[in-house]
Amino acid sequence: MAGGIQYIIRLSMQRELVPFRQLVELVDQIGGDIVALDMVRPEDDRIIRDLTVVMPTPAHLQQLEDALAHMPGTAVENVSDRTFLMHLGGKIEIQPRVQVKTRADLSHIYTPGVARVVQAIADDPSKAFQLTMKRNTVAIVTDGTAILGMGHLGAKAALPVMEGKSVLFKWLGNVDAVPICLDTTDVDEIVETVVRIAPAFGGINLEDIAAPRCFEVEAKLRGRLDIPVFHDDQHGTAIVILAGLINAAQVVGKPIADLRVVISGIGAAGTATTDLLLEAGIKDIVGYDREGPIIRTRQYPGRPSWNAYAQKTNPHLRDGSLKEIMVGADAFIGVSTGNLLSVTDVEGMAANPILFVMANPEPEIQPELVQSKVRVLATGRSDYPNQINNVLCFPGFFRGVLDSRVSQITMRMKLKAAEALASVVKPDELSAEYIIPSVFNRGVATKVAQAVSRAAEEEGVARRTPPPLR
Amino acid sequence: MAGGIQYIIRLSMQRELVPFRQLVELVDQIGGDIVALDMVRPEDDRIIRDLTVVMPTPAHLQQLEDALAHMPGTAVENVSDRTFLMHLGGKIEIQPRVQVKTRADLSHIYTPGVARVVQAIADDPSKAFQLTMKRNTVAIVTDGTAILGMGHLGAKAALPVMEGKSVLFKWLGNVDAVPICLDTTDVDEIVETVVRIAPAFGGINLEDIAAPRCFEVEAKLRGRLDIPVFHDDQHGTAIVILAGLINAAQVVGKPIADLRVVISGIGAAGTATTDLLLEAGIKDIVGYDREGPIIRTRQYPGRPSWNAYAQKTNPHLRDGSLKEIMVGADAFIGVSTGNLLSVTDVEGMAANPILFVMANPEPEIQPELVQSKVRVLATGRSDYPNQINNVLCFPGFFRGVLDSRVSQITMRMKLKAAEALASVVKPDELSAEYIIPSVFNRGVATKVAQAVSRAAEEEGVARRTPPPLR
Repeated sequence: MAGGIQYIIRLSMQRELVPFRQLVELVDQIGGDIVALDMVRPEDDRIIRDLTVVMPTPAHLQQLEDALAHMPGTAVENVSDRTFLMHLGGKIEIQPRVQVKTRADLSHIYTPGVARVVQAIADDPSKAFQLTMKRNTVAIVTDGTAILGMGHLGAKAALPVMEGKSVLFKWLGNVDAVPICLDTTDVDEIVETVVRIAPAFGGINLEDIAAPRCFEVEAKLRGRLDIPVFHDDQHGTAIVILAGLINAAQVVGKPIADLRVVISGIGAAGTATTDLLLEAGIKDIVGYDREGPIIRTRQYPGRPSWNAYAQKTNPHLRDGSLKEIMVGADAFIGVSTGNLLSVTDVEGMAANPILFVMANPEPEIQPELVQSKVRVLATGRSDYPNQINNVLCFPGFFRGVLDSRVSQITMRMKLKAAEALASVVKPDELSAEYIIPSVFNRGVATKVAQAVSRAAEEEGVARRTPPPLR
Repeated sequence: MAGGIQYIIRLSMQRELVPFRQLVELVDQIGGDIVALDMVRPEDDRIIRDLTVVMPTPAHLQQLEDALAHMPGTAVENVSDRTFLMHLGGKIEIQPRVQVKTRADLSHIYTPGVARVVQAIADDPSKAFQLTMKRNTVAIVTDGTAILGMGHLGAKAALPVMEGKSVLFKWLGNVDAVPICLDTTDVDEIVETVVRIAPAFGGINLEDIAAPRCFEVEAKLRGRLDIPVFHDDQHGTAIVILAGLINAAQVVGKPIADLRVVISGIGAAGTATTDLLLEAGIKDIVGYDREGPIIRTRQYPGRPSWNAYAQKTNPHLRDGSLKEIMVGADAFIGVSTGNLLSVTDVEGMAANPILFVMANPEPEIQPELVQSKVRVLATGRSDYPNQINNVLCFPGFFRGVLDSRVSQITMRMKLKAAEALASVVKPDELSAEYIIPSVFNRGVATKVAQAVSRAAEEEGVARRTPPPLR
């Protein structure tokens, strides 16, 4: 059944009361298919079974559940779909990199042998980079205040996202990433906690921390730590956007520095993207948020990050509605909210407009409405071409950071990472539908890592030169 | 070469200047063997090679290094022995438990699918035990103040020990354990930090935190967390000692409750051991530390833990030198310092004396001096019979804790764990040389885990009943 969803229904069934035939007929009637009926365990006069079915839609599943609930001698204990099943017991584990088979092995990795390694690090703490997990491990730190697009749901609820990120770190960058979900939302408590746990890590990836708190946390941590701190929602997003924009500018045949850009949503991602686009030479950027275009002629009380933003952007002091500031713009970059843009807003843009609409889960405008009116369209989603996805950056970025034992991240490293990511799309492959590589392109992380290592060396923040061949 | 040590010497050799034959002769002359000479990489006019040798002693290695340093065209870049080599790059890594092969996989483990799992946990935080790493993960938390027997060497230097522990957790208990090395030694900062990072973990293993700070940290954390806190240096040690003592009492044919016990070293391990021995019914325990026997007729200013200790021990108010309080004792348990005991101290004990001398690295008395005078002798070392090693406890103990989603650890759980550990030695196997199982006995962890789960259920601190069959 193409497109169906697989579910596993745990049933407690009275022995010999419910024939298998009856189940088959029921599922068939509702329009699904039985994949398997597995025995889990007997329990007194009942048998616990797992019924695996494929149903066309969740509504069909609901019908089946209702029918099963009314079937005599049968009770539905639990229903899991594949997403939940893949999360059972968590998505990551710790594995030894050394084997313990003999007493000698044990004496090397634990007492008494380990004492010499301890002493070596006590004598020269930088040896931790060679002799411990610090060499290849980052902490993914969140306070759970901006989980995906879902808001503040708490530290435990953030964990599946951090684990997913850890899986991607390992899979794409061979980076070991430990989720650290903090039970506090206080800036100083977050900072103090990260500083205290930092010794075991070679880098800190901040994640899903709400703006403007994230700016303060990152700035304070940068001042306290000798390992790099990288808020992925800011810088990862900015790097992938810039990479896409470099290639989009190529497609439309405009020099990137000359683009007039409107950025919607001046939170974590919007601010960092603006900074990186400025670094890339773009001069005319107008930020837009719920109070309109951000402009230095206005004050933003209680919003220090907007006041700072106004100083470095909007050189022509454009003001007015979103529609008005969109007039003549070459590119719109949306990291804001769904369905904010109208078709006529887009129609006012310059020739060959570039639209990055990355609001989650609904883009700033439905791509179908403007596909014929823009030259390059990118979203955050996988069901359209040109997916702007942080996964393209963080595994490779931290691979480079760890390979070079980077002490801090500079703007140039981010710029070079974006250029490297853009360069994965070869000139003869480049098109309006292919400005950014696929997340399944395994060459991406290596390219990004090498660019980060090179830039770190040039910037004097590398504490090691990685071997030339990977 | 039996008993030799294997080393790897990284050499930078001028091309074609140093013939292999010359190296072989040199190593042979000094009394070692060449295992291999591997090419690492060419570098301009030099070649980098790894010379693997087995040398009888470190002194022989030094001779070889000196000779190599004087060989024209050759430079020694680095010398590693097997212990250091096993630590290169750290001893643990994070591995995904799920495969990412298709875009569908990605959408299950990360966005957008993960959002439903996030929501499920936000709605019911206890679901984190099913759907995240919390189910099987503990934090190994240290402040680096009591690393092995080596004192306060700092957070980074503690890391190899914590990683070694993590390897043992996984290998013996299938527990995922994350090293958390704290860059603070302040009790409240330690407590706050652990409370804030706790959401991702199913338990906290405190490790190598100096007494008396460790008591306060543990007590405060127990009051703040709904997951168990277990200071292994205290309770792990106590459990393994009690297990050994249960079997030692069998060997000497005395009821355990009637033993007169002297415990030397009233720090973390000595205090916890005393508490557990009292729980096991032993009534006559005298604690001994640098100020003599601990006794309630004296005050210990600045040592509140000793004042409390005095209240519950030494019922007959024994006083005097170590020799004097040893007179008539059935068992001596040393968790103090090397070479504290004399042969005549031991000669004053009751018939069939039991001696646990576990000071590290030198026991309280050299076993050779008293082997003929005591009935049962145990040490912390692997080169004598009866090794009292925490590895026998913590993997199984936390396996049980996680299987039952234990909310806190009770005295009864520790008692039952000790009894289970003791029971691994079958009555027909029990002898003066075999009172405690080997750390390589793979049945230990399961037995301990089952006992912990059962006791947790009886005590009402289990939040889950593990399936009956493992």
